[in-house]
Amino acid sequence: MIIDSLAQLREVVGPENVLTGTDVSARATHFWDATPLTAAAIIRPATTAETSAVLRACHDAGQSVVTQGGSTGLVDGHRSKPDEIVLSLERMTAIEAVDVTGRTLTVEAGAILQNVQQTAVDAGLQFGLDLGARGSCTIGGNISTNAGGLSVLRYGMTREQVLGLEVVLADGTILSSMNRMMKNNAGYDLKHLFIGSEGTLGVITRAVLRLRPATPAVNTALLAFDSFQQVSDTLSHLGRSLNSTLDAFEVIWQPFYQLNTDPDIAGTSTSPLPRDYAFYAIVEARSTEQEEASALFERVLEQALTNEHITDAVIAQSERERQNIWHIREHIDIALQHDPVFVYDISLPIANMNGYVSDILARLQSRWPQVILYVYGHLADGNLHVLVAPPAEGTLSSAEQQAWHSTSNDIVYQPLQAMGGSVSAEHGIGLTKKPYLCLSRTPEEISLMQTLKRSLDPHSILNPGKIIP
Amino acid sequence: MIIDSLAQLREVVGPENVLTGTDVSARATHFWDATPLTAAAIIRPATTAETSAVLRACHDAGQSVVTQGGSTGLVDGHRSKPDEIVLSLERMTAIEAVDVTGRTLTVEAGAILQNVQQTAVDAGLQFGLDLGARGSCTIGGNISTNAGGLSVLRYGMTREQVLGLEVVLADGTILSSMNRMMKNNAGYDLKHLFIGSEGTLGVITRAVLRLRPATPAVNTALLAFDSFQQVSDTLSHLGRSLNSTLDAFEVIWQPFYQLNTDPDIAGTSTSPLPRDYAFYAIVEARSTEQEEASALFERVLEQALTNEHITDAVIAQSERERQNIWHIREHIDIALQHDPVFVYDISLPIANMNGYVSDILARLQSRWPQVILYVYGHLADGNLHVLVAPPAEGTLSSAEQQAWHSTSNDIVYQPLQAMGGSVSAEHGIGLTKKPYLCLSRTPEEISLMQTLKRSLDPHSILNPGKIIP
Repeated sequence: MIIDSLAQLREVVGPENVLTGTDVSARATHFWDATPLTAAAIIRPATTAETSAVLRACHDAGQSVVTQGGSTGLVDGHRSKPDEIVLSLERMTAIEAVDVTGRTLTVEAGAILQNVQQTAVDAGLQFGLDLGARGSCTIGGNISTNAGGLSVLRYGMTREQVLGLEVVLADGTILSSMNRMMKNNAGYDLKHLFIGSEGTLGVITRAVLRLRPATPAVNTALLAFDSFQQVSDTLSHLGRSLNSTLDAFEVIWQPFYQLNTDPDIAGTSTSPLPRDYAFYAIVEARSTEQEEASALFERVLEQALTNEHITDAVIAQSERERQNIWHIREHIDIALQHDPVFVYDISLPIANMNGYVSDILARLQSRWPQVILYVYGHLADGNLHVLVAPPAEGTLSSAEQQAWHSTSNDIVYQPLQAMGGSVSAEHGIGLTKKPYLCLSRTPEEISLMQTLKRSLDPHSILNPGKIIP
Repeated sequence: MIIDSLAQLREVVGPENVLTGTDVSARATHFWDATPLTAAAIIRPATTAETSAVLRACHDAGQSVVTQGGSTGLVDGHRSKPDEIVLSLERMTAIEAVDVTGRTLTVEAGAILQNVQQTAVDAGLQFGLDLGARGSCTIGGNISTNAGGLSVLRYGMTREQVLGLEVVLADGTILSSMNRMMKNNAGYDLKHLFIGSEGTLGVITRAVLRLRPATPAVNTALLAFDSFQQVSDTLSHLGRSLNSTLDAFEVIWQPFYQLNTDPDIAGTSTSPLPRDYAFYAIVEARSTEQEEASALFERVLEQALTNEHITDAVIAQSERERQNIWHIREHIDIALQHDPVFVYDISLPIANMNGYVSDILARLQSRWPQVILYVYGHLADGNLHVLVAPPAEGTLSSAEQQAWHSTSNDIVYQPLQAMGGSVSAEHGIGLTKKPYLCLSRTPEEISLMQTLKRSLDPHSILNPGKIIP
């Protein structure tokens, strides 16, 4: 640690907000990993001004700082080393203002996503971001990773939910850019530098978020298909006919569907349709007016059945039936019990998807003949989640595990380059995907990222070593 | 001109594509200004590689380059000086590919917006950007200025229509970032640096655009109100009830409405409603299915009349009636015949709008008692267009015109700062708004813009002197 004494930081945030020793190691590394957190200290500022003073001191001392939100990220973007300081905005959780007419919400970055969502609902509106970690993740973490999730088809990624930001730059400069306007073309739109850059260019302390009209009228169906062509045709059909009310089009390949509806496994869903179709899709449309919405939804699905775009379908008749259908998609715990299992988040053109899945399955099988491949995803966004479970006899050694993971990575990631896909659709790069960034970005793009990093953080103190090779 | 000889550039693009002398002055300065164009030369590359070679030569020589599209911008962002080179992408107009399933369009930056729109329509889709200059402006110009226009409420600004870009940096580096994925979180999203930076950070040569489902079912109404509170309530009501099908909510203050429906002026619209209401709004919803859409539209407007959110309303019963209604909003030629007339494009919170308009009217009247103030705009986006026409006896001298303009600017722009409004909602900053940028951006924001400019364009050759004070 380059700052020999933490006295300076204790003066800024108060001694009780500089945690060291067992106060650090009592925390877990990760939402998914109970290993004790390693860091020189955890600093908990109460305001943007305190955050600024902390960063100024670190900048002057060349001290590395890793900003952490809810630590639910999946690419180790938040991981800290023993000589690094963790900056936690856990005391900056205020929801400062709601503007119902202008449909904006002003928050501190440490606010938990679920609280943001609830505030919007209480104001008769909704927030356009939702993901499984909603109860733990922070809005600052969502913004710094440009989180995706369950509402992207309708509302876009987190980037499109952000109107303004307050950011502290590496040298402590406070960049207050708390725009509340839908339209503001007054010079460069600087917020985009900080959205999705995973804490490497600045620390987000406050944000103005965009809210959306509430959509209480929900229609949900489970569809089944014999071929991927049908899936693709149906997506086009529904995208056109349900127009802007289509909220979700989640596709599940047969193996994952069969696992999560297996009557012999506890906690699975009851399958509302035969279990031997090649593909399934959960379709959900949301709008305000139930009457017109339900009529349109039923008519459009009937057309699709008549046109043989869909082989089979069932519409949820109750919230309970709806939950049962969604559980098939969201319940990943069973698949994660495989050991080892490697989890991927990629995007690629829909036209390439079916061929891609067949191709990587064949390549995985040539390495591990009994490998299991689970595939599901946000098809309309081009985003697939892929789980690779190669069969192991007993527990692998750490070296074996690493070698298998690396083989699996190569098989899953390599083909994406030629088709212009992405090695990270929504999870970011962090540490774990850094070796594969070059498959989705050109040398010139990576070089420009380095230029930006040098310009904004010349001492390289902000989350160093993340994203950029 | 620092490059003494254009020989080097003639070798790159061919002698016939280096225009000088009368080939330059035969062109107009601007779509709205017939004054001869002043520039050392116009260079017309045919490819990204040629553009790269041109910029590399200019970078080495410290030669300023102004990239021009359709020259329809309203803030002199495209204006060139006698010693500057104009880079025109008028030979790079190809529409390279349409992906109907992935809903993307790949184009060269010189393509005219209307051709992009038509290509999308021919593919059974639509492009989410439309503006009055569609027949002249280029997609490269739209992207570099982050153009707004008529579809922002539904689809967002140009930024949200762009998936990928190919950009040539100041030193000639080709940054090919032609992403076609809806979701791609692989490192910094570099395209946002170039969208809306008005040609000061790079030259956009190609783009991947996002397309939207077609919305052939159109419902249009003209509404009238006695108070601004009604206008605001109706916007909330329609935003909620018509959900994501609301395409336009254009509000017109009485003076502009009365001018454009004046039966004594040729070319005006016939007013479908009494002409003495305080406010009018044109509402348009678009979707796929006419049946459900019309039923919903009529029911929602009836509710608003019953709730007294609306005082009076008429629904267009034919395309001709629809055109007549839109003409009231779009026909600005009559207002522009005032001399002088100063035209503004600003944004501010809806809650502040009515007070703001009264306030600036009072201040304008205290300077010019007979001043006419026309106000209309994209209310849902917080975006107003304001026309200030102070009465002059005869033609003003150039110095008088400048002094009046400056007084008017101060009155219109100054109050925006305190309410967090923008001096440029959609037109950009260019040259004409540069003195007022500081009202919408903090010193720290402007300083970061300068840092970016220095990092990406160290010799300051790209559209120098624009945007940043």
